[in-house]
Amino acid sequence: MAAPGRGARTGRAGSTRRQFLLGGAVAGVGAAAAIGADTVLNADRPAQPVPAAAPMNGESTVPFYGAHQAGIDTDAQAHGVFVALDLHEGTDREAMRRMMRILSDDAARLTQGEPALADSEPELAVTPARLTVTFAFGPRFVVRAKGAAPAWLGPLPAFSVDRLQPELSDGDLLIQIAADDPLTVAHATRMLLKDTRSFASVRWTQQGFRRAYGSVKPGTTMRNLFGQVDGTSNPSPGTAEFDRVVWTQHDGWLAGGTSMVVRRIRMDLDKWDELDRGGREQSVGRTLSNGAPLTGTDEHDEPDFEATTAIGFPVIPEFSHVRRARPEDPGQRIFRRAYNYEDGATADRVSDAGLIFVSFQADVDAQFTPIQRRLDQLDLLNEWTVPVGSAVFAVPPGCADGGYVGETLLT
Amino acid sequence: MAAPGRGARTGRAGSTRRQFLLGGAVAGVGAAAAIGADTVLNADRPAQPVPAAAPMNGESTVPFYGAHQAGIDTDAQAHGVFVALDLHEGTDREAMRRMMRILSDDAARLTQGEPALADSEPELAVTPARLTVTFAFGPRFVVRAKGAAPAWLGPLPAFSVDRLQPELSDGDLLIQIAADDPLTVAHATRMLLKDTRSFASVRWTQQGFRRAYGSVKPGTTMRNLFGQVDGTSNPSPGTAEFDRVVWTQHDGWLAGGTSMVVRRIRMDLDKWDELDRGGREQSVGRTLSNGAPLTGTDEHDEPDFEATTAIGFPVIPEFSHVRRARPEDPGQRIFRRAYNYEDGATADRVSDAGLIFVSFQADVDAQFTPIQRRLDQLDLLNEWTVPVGSAVFAVPPGCADGGYVGETLLT
Repeated sequence: MAAPGRGARTGRAGSTRRQFLLGGAVAGVGAAAAIGADTVLNADRPAQPVPAAAPMNGESTVPFYGAHQAGIDTDAQAHGVFVALDLHEGTDREAMRRMMRILSDDAARLTQGEPALADSEPELAVTPARLTVTFAFGPRFVVRAKGAAPAWLGPLPAFSVDRLQPELSDGDLLIQIAADDPLTVAHATRMLLKDTRSFASVRWTQQGFRRAYGSVKPGTTMRNLFGQVDGTSNPSPGTAEFDRVVWTQHDGWLAGGTSMVVRRIRMDLDKWDELDRGGREQSVGRTLSNGAPLTGTDEHDEPDFEATTAIGFPVIPEFSHVRRARPEDPGQRIFRRAYNYEDGATADRVSDAGLIFVSFQADVDAQFTPIQRRLDQLDLLNEWTVPVGSAVFAVPPGCADGGYVGETLLT
Repeated sequence: MAAPGRGARTGRAGSTRRQFLLGGAVAGVGAAAAIGADTVLNADRPAQPVPAAAPMNGESTVPFYGAHQAGIDTDAQAHGVFVALDLHEGTDREAMRRMMRILSDDAARLTQGEPALADSEPELAVTPARLTVTFAFGPRFVVRAKGAAPAWLGPLPAFSVDRLQPELSDGDLLIQIAADDPLTVAHATRMLLKDTRSFASVRWTQQGFRRAYGSVKPGTTMRNLFGQVDGTSNPSPGTAEFDRVVWTQHDGWLAGGTSMVVRRIRMDLDKWDELDRGGREQSVGRTLSNGAPLTGTDEHDEPDFEATTAIGFPVIPEFSHVRRARPEDPGQRIFRRAYNYEDGATADRVSDAGLIFVSFQADVDAQFTPIQRRLDQLDLLNEWTVPVGSAVFAVPPGCADGGYVGETLLT
């Protein structure tokens, strides 16, 4: 996971100076880390007795400025909030520009552990915990900005499995706020939404989670609430394949950008529980224990779709998710960056749980839709899942210090 | 925060064997940590070049069995879910005993990183991340168990500030599920609620958060969504004062137990933002920067309620929260273990955010109610906060391996 791009985790090295400047216990950590590194490099020199302490992940930052926006190739943080806004009637192109300037400025501050410009609780801003803020534009945003909308920017084709709710779908502006700390996410979300109030109103908010920092090794593929290893076939950030899959080939305002699909997939955990372990593994085509294809032993083994059982049936069933999701041609790949959601039981429901499916791809029509169409037709997992929300956004490129996200569209 | 009791964090030392057994990268961490410690102790011996890596907090466990239940004197985890259940009409004393046996057994497994007995997603159970499960009984539970109910077990007196909603108040059985990992909490909650389905139905669920593991130094007092340092005057687990404040003096079934107050306090963040920094500090009586009383410089300085300004006004105003909350006599102390909540903006609301106030004390009437009564009368913070849920529970003692929580009441 040592991605060389802007998504690489910069905390360990990048925040050492900050740790020293902060003084006290955090500086102590910095000192310990520095001496530790020194010891490793100079094994013949006696080590200094220093207190053992882990570096503070809360101080880790991801750069906001760059050719691409952060929060895409960034190793996914533990918490992600997705807010979709609708522009007010009177928010014209000039107002949209003002809004994106203010939002970018505050996002730049908050992601670096600085308070927002008019931060009402600055003490909550000093723990960035790898905070990233990512902006994406819906169809109406691009039209009102008088930009050329890519052909794929609009609602997905209707799939037979969909039970979409308007209050969980679409939107003019999407803000993805992600960090390893839930209080950091809550504070940043609030500060950014205050910036938008004169220009737009909230359409929907979705809150998601993955494993916490410190729970599992960085780079471990996430598990969803079905217990499945989820996202194995993702291209790795920092590779040419990732760049090919994710970054758009447009040479207009979207150059250096991508597309984002956000779908809320409700998962019927109780019905899933009725299925035995063998049935579950058949429905996915992977083992539950480590996510290996049923024809392999390791998570990243290539599935063998030709393999058959002793009595001639495919080892990986025809209707299994892994077979249906597998692209017919290598152009049909996407980069997934999903979050689990769980809204808790009430008197009226056992739970409201599932997956905030998020994917980035250069072209929705060419990459995402063919996969979803195949899944819609035959994927066994459809028995236990229902898409209840869906939205497509255009993700503009990043910007340099002094610029703002959306400047290629709005200036 | 080095509490010697059962709430002490046992992960670092306690999970070393597990880390070695797990092999791979986690074992590597164990080896690095062991060699690191060795280096410190033997500064004249050259250190071995080992990869630097933090121990995995995900493997840390808190004992389930003990004289007191876990999750009370345990250093508060990052995520807490509170579920209140109502017993089915037909759930009699014998059924209640069965339910508590099943719940205790699964809680014991899950907290130690083992799957529940009928775990449908065992792979989600292997990351305990300091999981604790705490059970507490409402008035009807105790009556139906034919136990002697303490005088304080029932709804609190009505306070003028309350705007209580029945669907966020009361309940027969409370389960507090807390861990440093949100997926761990979601899985454990689901497994435990499956155990209860034949016996009880969910009345309400509240999901809360504090700073993540790795974000701040262990033992840092939490901040709420107003940005305030919240919980400074708590007694410290492991001290005689903590034991006096928290554990009940009853010698019946509640010996070794305590009482638990859970109140959902909605916080009007927007209105709070209208107040300037000086006004905020006056309303609380503490500085926002580090939580020091307005008469001091350090968070844990004792407030000087006699100090006056040059023109004769009290430095800590009469109506400030810290003055109103301060007990008239030392018997009126409580132990707070609160969580923030934030349910996200929708088209209909800016946000639904606040504090899941949780306190433990030996006697609600003697310790909690007098404080709340003073706050109800005059606390300035009432301008920005509204209690919308309230419940009181009796927390039975812990149990030994082979026993179950509630056995002192149900057998």
